[in-house]
Amino acid sequence: MLNFNLQFPTRIHFGQGKIEELGKEILQYGTRVLMVYGGGSIKRNGLYDQVVQVFNNNGIYYKELSGVQSNPRISSVRDGVAICKEHNIQLVLAVGGGSSIDCAKIIAAGAKYEGDAWDFFTRKARINEALPLGTILTLAATGSEMNGNAVISNEATLQKKGTGSSYLIPQFSILDPVYTYTVPSEQTAAGTADIMSHVFEQYFSPTPGTFIQDRLAEAMLKTCIHYAPIAIAEPINYEARANLMWTGCLALNGLLSAGKRTDWATHDIEHELSALYDITHGLGLAILTPYWMLHVLDEQTAVRLAEYARQVWGISENDEMTAARAGIKKTAAFFRSLGLAGSLKEIGVENKSLQEMAEKAASSRGLGAFKTLHYQDVLEILQAAYEGAEL
Amino acid sequence: MLNFNLQFPTRIHFGQGKIEELGKEILQYGTRVLMVYGGGSIKRNGLYDQVVQVFNNNGIYYKELSGVQSNPRISSVRDGVAICKEHNIQLVLAVGGGSSIDCAKIIAAGAKYEGDAWDFFTRKARINEALPLGTILTLAATGSEMNGNAVISNEATLQKKGTGSSYLIPQFSILDPVYTYTVPSEQTAAGTADIMSHVFEQYFSPTPGTFIQDRLAEAMLKTCIHYAPIAIAEPINYEARANLMWTGCLALNGLLSAGKRTDWATHDIEHELSALYDITHGLGLAILTPYWMLHVLDEQTAVRLAEYARQVWGISENDEMTAARAGIKKTAAFFRSLGLAGSLKEIGVENKSLQEMAEKAASSRGLGAFKTLHYQDVLEILQAAYEGAEL
Repeated sequence: MLNFNLQFPTRIHFGQGKIEELGKEILQYGTRVLMVYGGGSIKRNGLYDQVVQVFNNNGIYYKELSGVQSNPRISSVRDGVAICKEHNIQLVLAVGGGSSIDCAKIIAAGAKYEGDAWDFFTRKARINEALPLGTILTLAATGSEMNGNAVISNEATLQKKGTGSSYLIPQFSILDPVYTYTVPSEQTAAGTADIMSHVFEQYFSPTPGTFIQDRLAEAMLKTCIHYAPIAIAEPINYEARANLMWTGCLALNGLLSAGKRTDWATHDIEHELSALYDITHGLGLAILTPYWMLHVLDEQTAVRLAEYARQVWGISENDEMTAARAGIKKTAAFFRSLGLAGSLKEIGVENKSLQEMAEKAASSRGLGAFKTLHYQDVLEILQAAYEGAEL
Repeated sequence: MLNFNLQFPTRIHFGQGKIEELGKEILQYGTRVLMVYGGGSIKRNGLYDQVVQVFNNNGIYYKELSGVQSNPRISSVRDGVAICKEHNIQLVLAVGGGSSIDCAKIIAAGAKYEGDAWDFFTRKARINEALPLGTILTLAATGSEMNGNAVISNEATLQKKGTGSSYLIPQFSILDPVYTYTVPSEQTAAGTADIMSHVFEQYFSPTPGTFIQDRLAEAMLKTCIHYAPIAIAEPINYEARANLMWTGCLALNGLLSAGKRTDWATHDIEHELSALYDITHGLGLAILTPYWMLHVLDEQTAVRLAEYARQVWGISENDEMTAARAGIKKTAAFFRSLGLAGSLKEIGVENKSLQEMAEKAASSRGLGAFKTLHYQDVLEILQAAYEGAEL
């Protein structure tokens, strides 16, 4: 186990009706809010009206930034920053999934920065301050509601990049599982794949002696596997929605990575995919993950992949390689069972872009920590995922 | 799953050498510190000297309160409060296990209160303020290093009572597993029993639909079961000490209780035991827990106790009652295997005090939440535990 520093400062308000905390939370920081959200779903399910009522009841002045897209764009960030500066905004409130939250985070940082917010992603500037941030979560997926990370796409350069800072950690997050009742089944499936991928990226690590972290990771994977099919079959099942929502939050708040090196190769590859094709992040991850697992499987990594197969999927094979392969197959079959595509070609990715994506993803120092990947590795993973090759 | 609010504000510095963070942390709050510790163990293992060196290197003025006992007493608290008031102390630093930390917490609150600190336990006063608090942990057990709870004994009234407040949550905690290398095997065993008991009190709950919390709890139990024997056999095994230390911290920081009703009957009974006999808390818990499990086992609770047996102990019995009983036997056998006593009479408890303890523990509204206990239940548990009856 490696040394680590850890703190979870976000105040979590979890459960049905927790929007009752919103007014009190906002007023700690001021009375001028920028509300950031995506499409019309929060208008259809009544959440928009609830939030506006809280604003009105508490004398809160608000501006809106709507239309944040599923791979949130730097142009939306710039629009939000301009509103903050013009209207002397005191708190940014994201209402939505990870896209709205990530967009709101960079708006909050950009509002306190003279230059252009894309500078945070090119490492031209560090985030040294940010407006306070609150979130109301409507999708169990990214975990952005309890961490300081954000991923933004630059539509001009076709880049999708991440950054992180303790200044981006939300002050509070309201997690009401009822707000996820209206999430369509394909988004529920992709969100679950996203959560599971976050766990995988931290679970598959070269750091030895992280027994507690690994058992916690398996607990989260089992929860996803148990509840995703239930949430898809019964969208208004509170228990399923609540377990997925809380697991998504815990999966990326620092608990699983504390004391470990983490991988993130699959995420890095997927970012190139969704930068080029604007596909749903979780769907890309679901397709890539089993092929990443198969590619990194060797004599050394088999022990760990076999442990995954046994602990999470109940595989009873004694041979490490055989057990590992069985776990990989189970993983792919599970994502398929949720209705997710099993190959990149099914979702419109073109064969001719595989090389470009592999080049962009594979940096000179190599990708990942569980097993280091280079250009040829990434290309092979993309090719197998493109074809939906036999696992 | 129930609604919950949750925040983990403590900054955790985990790992070998993390005392390097101490000076910087203290100086955020001031330059006048009260250092609270127990006996001579931190002098023998060099930690005392390290802490004093940090004080000296950073120009920090300090006073000491030493001799805090394993069931910390209100008289120690009063001594500490007096020092804080007289010397204008700005931060209380606990160096030790849960006893030193709990004592330091109430000192920190008492320093900001006009009356007597025992008022916080009789509910005569609420904790509305406290000095900032830091901890350097030397024992994996109570989890006090990351929560706002404290248990104090009143030697005059033979009472042992708990209280809690967000003002008592440490600002920072330094968790260096190396400091637990010198913990003797009986303390390692009792500390592990304490951690496992914390998990049990939250795992065995009447709240349905808490799948993620329950799998996380099992992860912690498995970690204790895996590493306690290793830490006892090889006291300087870093991996074992690190896993136990981090698990002890996570087991009582709010993660497992979020969204659930919790039980705490076994703790309430044990508090009467150690109030009267001043025995090690974890040892008392280890003896009582299997008898509590057996006593609450019925048609309704069997499902849950069987789940515990299967998930944690790998019991493959199909029948719920049979599986549950097998899990209870395994629990008792495990504690015995760590060298812990299996009956109250072995550790000097007298038969004649069982009634008194049962009366004190059993409040009029009943004890526990998984299954409510009354006087007769508590007495039966104590009698069976006294004899070390067949499980």
